[in-house]
Amino acid sequence: MKTKIRFFEVGPRDGLQNEEAIVDTSQRVEMIQRLVRAGVKDVEIGSFVHPKWVPQMAGTDEVAKRLTRVSGVRYWGLVPNLKGLRRAVDCQVEHVALFMSATEAHNQSNLNRSLSESLEALEETAKAAQSEGMTIRAYISTAFGCPFEGKVDFDVVLSIGEKLLELGAEHLSLGDTIGAGSPQEVARGCSRAVESFGAEKVALHLHDTQGLALPNALMAYQQGVRLFDGAIGGMGGCPYAPGAAGNVASEDLLNMLGQMGGESGIEPGDLCEVVEWLGRSLSFTVRGRYFDYWRAKLREQGAGA
Amino acid sequence: MKTKIRFFEVGPRDGLQNEEAIVDTSQRVEMIQRLVRAGVKDVEIGSFVHPKWVPQMAGTDEVAKRLTRVSGVRYWGLVPNLKGLRRAVDCQVEHVALFMSATEAHNQSNLNRSLSESLEALEETAKAAQSEGMTIRAYISTAFGCPFEGKVDFDVVLSIGEKLLELGAEHLSLGDTIGAGSPQEVARGCSRAVESFGAEKVALHLHDTQGLALPNALMAYQQGVRLFDGAIGGMGGCPYAPGAAGNVASEDLLNMLGQMGGESGIEPGDLCEVVEWLGRSLSFTVRGRYFDYWRAKLREQGAGA
Repeated sequence: MKTKIRFFEVGPRDGLQNEEAIVDTSQRVEMIQRLVRAGVKDVEIGSFVHPKWVPQMAGTDEVAKRLTRVSGVRYWGLVPNLKGLRRAVDCQVEHVALFMSATEAHNQSNLNRSLSESLEALEETAKAAQSEGMTIRAYISTAFGCPFEGKVDFDVVLSIGEKLLELGAEHLSLGDTIGAGSPQEVARGCSRAVESFGAEKVALHLHDTQGLALPNALMAYQQGVRLFDGAIGGMGGCPYAPGAAGNVASEDLLNMLGQMGGESGIEPGDLCEVVEWLGRSLSFTVRGRYFDYWRAKLREQGAGA
Repeated sequence: MKTKIRFFEVGPRDGLQNEEAIVDTSQRVEMIQRLVRAGVKDVEIGSFVHPKWVPQMAGTDEVAKRLTRVSGVRYWGLVPNLKGLRRAVDCQVEHVALFMSATEAHNQSNLNRSLSESLEALEETAKAAQSEGMTIRAYISTAFGCPFEGKVDFDVVLSIGEKLLELGAEHLSLGDTIGAGSPQEVARGCSRAVESFGAEKVALHLHDTQGLALPNALMAYQQGVRLFDGAIGGMGGCPYAPGAAGNVASEDLLNMLGQMGGESGIEPGDLCEVVEWLGRSLSFTVRGRYFDYWRAKLREQGAGA
C-alpha cells in the first residue's frame, strides 16, 4: 500500500542562488523544463529579489516568460515584497513563495526587519497576492536552528506558522536553513506542526550540512509529513552555515521516500538524467549519493547488453 | 537520558580491503592506533584471508604483532578457516570474526561452498577458536539483499544466525553487503533479529550504495539495535555492487546516533582527525559528509580567534 507524497523542487531557486556560477536565462529555462519532463509538479523557478542582493536570480522575469508552461504543473516564484510580487504578476507567475525567519537575529540579518515587522509586511504582500488570485507558500527559515541564536523555540515557529496560514498561505515550508536540526528535533517539530495545522499544510525544507537530511526526512515522514522540498543533485549551500551544504538531493530524497512506501509519481532515475545534464552543462558538482548508484547501474546494464 | 550504544570500526579491514591502493604495514598500524586514540573500543585490524584473494590484507600478522595493545580495546581479525585461525593465534589476535552469506549464490561465489557446507566448516573453526579462549563475532553477508539472488529470505538469516550463536558467537553482524536494503526491510529484519536473539547479540553492518546507510541505521536504532559497524571516512566499496559505495562513515553514523540520544563514548570530531590523517597519508577520498562540516567549523573557529 503506497502513501501519497508531494515533492517541491527548489533547485532552480534555492539551488542556483547559492551556487557560485551565474547560470544564464536559457539554461535556467532548460533546467526547469527538464525537471518538469522528469515528473516534477511543483517547481520554484527563481526569485524576484533585487539582483543587487542575489545576482544569480536576476532575470527571473525573463525565465518565467520563456517557459513553456505544462498544465498541472505549478511554477513558483520567491517574492520578498510588493515590488517582487508585481514582477511575478507581470510575467504570469501565479504561485508565490513568501518568507521570513523564526528568529529575530536571522530575520534582521536577512530582511533587516523584526519578526513582527516581517509579519506586517507579509500581510500586505499576501493580500495583494490573494487579490490577484495567486497561491501562496510561506517559508519559515531557521525553524530548526539559527546561525546566530542557536536553538530555536518551536512555539515561535508554530505561532508564526499560524499567522502565515491566516494570511492565506496554502502551506508552510519549515526550513532547516543551516542543516542544524537533529533527527529528534525535526521529528518533534514536525509532529507538532502536523498536529497543529494538518499534514497538508506542512512542507519540510532540509539542508544536508551534517549528512542528516535523509535521516531527518525519514523522521518527518514517520510523523506524517507528506510534502518535501529538495534540490536536484543536492545543489546550493547556505551562506551562513559552516560546511555550506546544499539542499537535500531530490533524487536521494525520492528514492528513500519511495522505499518507505511513498508514492510521488517521480522516478529518481528520471531526476538523475537532469543531474547528468546539469553536470555536463553547468560543470556543477553532484552532492547526492543516488546519482553515482544510478550511473553505475546504467553502466552495468550497458556492459551486460 | 542517553542510550548506550556500541561501535565496531571495520575501516582497517573492510575499508582497506576494498580500496584500490595497497597500504603498507606501518600505515595500517598507525591507522588502528589513531582509531583507538579516538576512542574506538572494537576494531577489526585486518583479515587472515590468503593474500592471493585479498592482496590488501597480506601481512595482517605483522600488523597485529606491531600494534601496541591498549587495555579495554578489542582487536579483531577476520578469519576464513582453520588456517586463518592459526595465523590469528600466532600473532595474539584473541577476537575473531567468522563469516558466511545468507544466500547460496553469494556464498558460492565468495566462499565456493553451499550454506550448509559453510556452517559445517564454521563449526570446526569456532570450536578451535573457543578452545583457544577466543571471542567470536559472526558476519552474515547479504542479509538484506544479494547481488545474485536479489531479495533475501530473512527466515534464512535468522536460522543461520541461530546456528552461529550456538557455535559460540558473542554476536552477529548483519551485513547489507551491497547496500541494497530499504529502510523498511532493514527495520523489519532488525526487529526480528533483536526479538529472536536479544539486542546485545545483533550488530548492523551497512554500506552506503544508495545513500541510505544513515536512514537504515536510524530505523535499526528505533528497533533496538545498539551495536553498529562503520568505516572511518566511509572507506571501502563492494566489488559486486554497482556504485561500489563504501561502508557507512563512522563519523557520520556516530554523529547521527549521538543526536538520537545514543552514547558511544566516541566524539565524531576525534574520528574526523583520523579521517584527515587518512586523506593526507593515503590520498584517500572521504565519502562521508560530516567531515566537511567538521572542517568548516574548525576553519570558522580559527577565523574567529
